[in-house]
Amino acid sequence: MVDSRPDCVIVRFGGEVWLKKGWTRRRYLRLLLRNMKRTLKHFGVDYDEIVRLHGRVLVRSHSAMEVSSHLANVFGISSVSPAFETSSGLEDVVAKSVSLADGALGAGNSFAVKCTRVGKHPYSSGDICREVGSKVLEAFGEERGLRVDLGAPDVRLGVEVRGDSAYIHKEVIDGVGGFPLGSQGRVVGLLSGGVDSAVASWLVMKRGAIVRMVHFDISPFISDAAVTRVVAVARVLADWAVGFARHLYLVPYGDALKAIVTECPRRLTCVLCKRMMYRIAERLAERMTAKGIATGEALGEQASQTLHNLMILSSAVSKYPIHRPVFGFDKAETARLARRIGVYEPSNEQAGVCRAVPKKPATKAKLKDVLAAEAELDINGMIEASVKELKMLTL
Amino acid sequence: MVDSRPDCVIVRFGGEVWLKKGWTRRRYLRLLLRNMKRTLKHFGVDYDEIVRLHGRVLVRSHSAMEVSSHLANVFGISSVSPAFETSSGLEDVVAKSVSLADGALGAGNSFAVKCTRVGKHPYSSGDICREVGSKVLEAFGEERGLRVDLGAPDVRLGVEVRGDSAYIHKEVIDGVGGFPLGSQGRVVGLLSGGVDSAVASWLVMKRGAIVRMVHFDISPFISDAAVTRVVAVARVLADWAVGFARHLYLVPYGDALKAIVTECPRRLTCVLCKRMMYRIAERLAERMTAKGIATGEALGEQASQTLHNLMILSSAVSKYPIHRPVFGFDKAETARLARRIGVYEPSNEQAGVCRAVPKKPATKAKLKDVLAAEAELDINGMIEASVKELKMLTL
Repeated sequence: MVDSRPDCVIVRFGGEVWLKKGWTRRRYLRLLLRNMKRTLKHFGVDYDEIVRLHGRVLVRSHSAMEVSSHLANVFGISSVSPAFETSSGLEDVVAKSVSLADGALGAGNSFAVKCTRVGKHPYSSGDICREVGSKVLEAFGEERGLRVDLGAPDVRLGVEVRGDSAYIHKEVIDGVGGFPLGSQGRVVGLLSGGVDSAVASWLVMKRGAIVRMVHFDISPFISDAAVTRVVAVARVLADWAVGFARHLYLVPYGDALKAIVTECPRRLTCVLCKRMMYRIAERLAERMTAKGIATGEALGEQASQTLHNLMILSSAVSKYPIHRPVFGFDKAETARLARRIGVYEPSNEQAGVCRAVPKKPATKAKLKDVLAAEAELDINGMIEASVKELKMLTL
Repeated sequence: MVDSRPDCVIVRFGGEVWLKKGWTRRRYLRLLLRNMKRTLKHFGVDYDEIVRLHGRVLVRSHSAMEVSSHLANVFGISSVSPAFETSSGLEDVVAKSVSLADGALGAGNSFAVKCTRVGKHPYSSGDICREVGSKVLEAFGEERGLRVDLGAPDVRLGVEVRGDSAYIHKEVIDGVGGFPLGSQGRVVGLLSGGVDSAVASWLVMKRGAIVRMVHFDISPFISDAAVTRVVAVARVLADWAVGFARHLYLVPYGDALKAIVTECPRRLTCVLCKRMMYRIAERLAERMTAKGIATGEALGEQASQTLHNLMILSSAVSKYPIHRPVFGFDKAETARLARRIGVYEPSNEQAGVCRAVPKKPATKAKLKDVLAAEAELDINGMIEASVKELKMLTL
């Protein structure tokens, strides 16, 4: 049996990265390698070197399992396999594969062998599969009651032959997918501290955009626990963006909200509040050279999230688009993803509710009523004041 | 053993439906019942009656399996269980449960019993679980080598006691979730015929909004296969919206695109084309009293879908928001969902590519260049002409 600890990790990229051409693809791969290195360094995981293979990246490390679990969470990586390296000689490949199978296959297990090959070799991929399969059965097939099952095997042995070397593994761990972080520019992500907005920002990060996290601090309309909560959520998100700025921007918004509550019809409070947030976010996007705003709005989830109100909200801004990555998500789907991301628990901490929410918020606010109410407000003054007093927390 | 065919179906709604209050909840349930009836009628599935239980709906039918599989695809339903009805007397419940277990449990299986109860009964839910569990073990536990496993059993027996009746089942089939179709107003959904836009429109439908499907017909810049393809895709989507209008709107767009290609810088073609589509969609939304526009754009997927270009695109319209439900999806995730929906195959039919796409489309089009180019076009004339020649196909 081989040393039970794999000595390297095979890293695969999503198909979408490979679809890019020339300069774009090279830039993506460079970013991805940088993000991989920074992630391993940040989490204190040892490795010897990172090298490119054909269509893969190889990380040599004696902490291959740990390397795998961290890299599976790097955006742009579609899967990883802790593996054993050997020469591409047929005998070596077969010996190492049988040895790995010895440790991996238990009584009554079914297995399959899959081989990919790049380079010139005196054998085909099919030869490898047949040879490894028959040698495994010969060595301990009867004794353990093993059988081959190409459809849904208990264990899939993988052999990846690349030039003079071969890499043998017994599992493919799903990576998080997406594009390398930093490949798509910047977005302002509005975080309430709740689940939806955290997942929305994460989805934008997954697709490669850097998120400038912004929270509107509505105290005294909510307890201080709201800021504590959003900081905890933002810390989790920052851990997905190793190597990028770990900041959370707090917009003091209590005065603006107070003006809305006292000067305008109460049933319009939520719509007016959100329109103002959008406007401030637009100003921040401009300052931060971001190219869009991401929110956690899901169709129909709350009174402010009816199609009608989203239309009224969106019309408050025109330069920067509002992206709503969880628009079509059910609450249960968002929660499931939140657990995977790690934001579910912090975002479910009690933070109280906004005391400015009226008993009967409008679900079909009329634009002319909204505009009339806004005429009573010093919109520009409110934007300027909030942006001026912006606070930056380092997470 | 009981008649192996269940005689009813227990239908459960998503938690989000229950979160709604008073009038809204009643409206949702009314819509849901109507959509359920129409779906069963459309697919020719027999049932005797549909009745409300506490927090559930019950469908009595001797085609319970067929009813279940169709209702699992009705938006707003979170799960269904084909079930056997009996009285809520303890002996009846236990006898029916043991009988169902007899047919459901094979050699070596593990099982669990779960009970929910509404109403007054001389027993608790726990009593039912214990009694059914021990009677099952007594009857054929030893013979078949059964064991109880509350964590991850092979078979979960479910007992739902409601007043004088009880419903016994052995499986909970996941429903599609979301909100009842028709509960959230209307959206214009732009369909290209490809996977992304089909999934985007479906996600909007899932959250309860009616989608007015619109396709821009760019012939002669693409083969006629493009229209054939989008019709096939739209038919699949219409089957998810039984009881609603089965229409696909075709916007003749060849002349507009020709003007863009001939009058404007070639590298801006795609951005200008999409901005014009957004404008026309906005006009259609107005005419159709829709309250938003849904597209299949995913961040970074194509040259026209960089954050920068999405910003330039979005700024073409201001009255109606552009919703992008697959904004944060990887291609592989969209494809997985497309298979579940049934649009994967029709949307992967060969339809050729748009011949107007330039060799080097701009990924960072400048707004001032875009506006300058548009100054050469008769924007309003193009919108009017397209809207005037709108064709409606019945699917």
